[in-house]
Amino acid sequence: MAGNLFVDLPVAKEAAERLETLLARPGLRIERIVSTGQASPAGFWYEQADAEWVVLLSGEALLRFADEAEARRLHAGDWLYIEPGRRHRVNGTDPAAPTVWLAVHHAED
Amino acid sequence: MAGNLFVDLPVAKEAAERLETLLARPGLRIERIVSTGQASPAGFWYEQADAEWVVLLSGEALLRFADEAEARRLHAGDWLYIEPGRRHRVNGTDPAAPTVWLAVHHAED
Repeated sequence: MAGNLFVDLPVAKEAAERLETLLARPGLRIERIVSTGQASPAGFWYEQADAEWVVLLSGEALLRFADEAEARRLHAGDWLYIEPGRRHRVNGTDPAAPTVWLAVHHAED
Repeated sequence: MAGNLFVDLPVAKEAAERLETLLARPGLRIERIVSTGQASPAGFWYEQADAEWVVLLSGEALLRFADEAEARRLHAGDWLYIEPGRRHRVNGTDPAAPTVWLAVHHAED
């Protein structure tokens, strides 16, 4: 299995984020997510059973944790680890260029 | 835990690759590796018990699998999955600019 994270990117805003699973193994899932200006729905919070390590590789995003007062502005290369159950949402992504995320979901058992 | 993959990069060739563990959990280890022209030692092959998903994020590298006739030339965004035990080596990395790798090591049990 092989590929490139920066190919087949949308050239214009799309209706929804693109999500591709690059690797799925017991306890591990690696995804590429491509956003084109999307944000999480109003009032929606992710609350995931698995841990997530995520890095933004191009574009920009505003990531908000429920336990923080303000959203974090993420730029290329910014990564963070989201503990299981920690509520978060995406307040917005770059409307002008694709935002490419790499997410590593890990079941800690 | 949070950070940026593209900060604190070497400005010149160093004696050895830099390896930083970004996340270590049971069955999972995420590393940033920064190469500045290094190659694997002559005759050396990696042969790892764990599976490795790896992506090259900047720079260039020549990655050779023992079961392939020629090295693959990797550019920014190129990722591949290395099954446990599959012998491979790095024939070379960009001597002119840092090569940044992100490696996800996963124990499949």
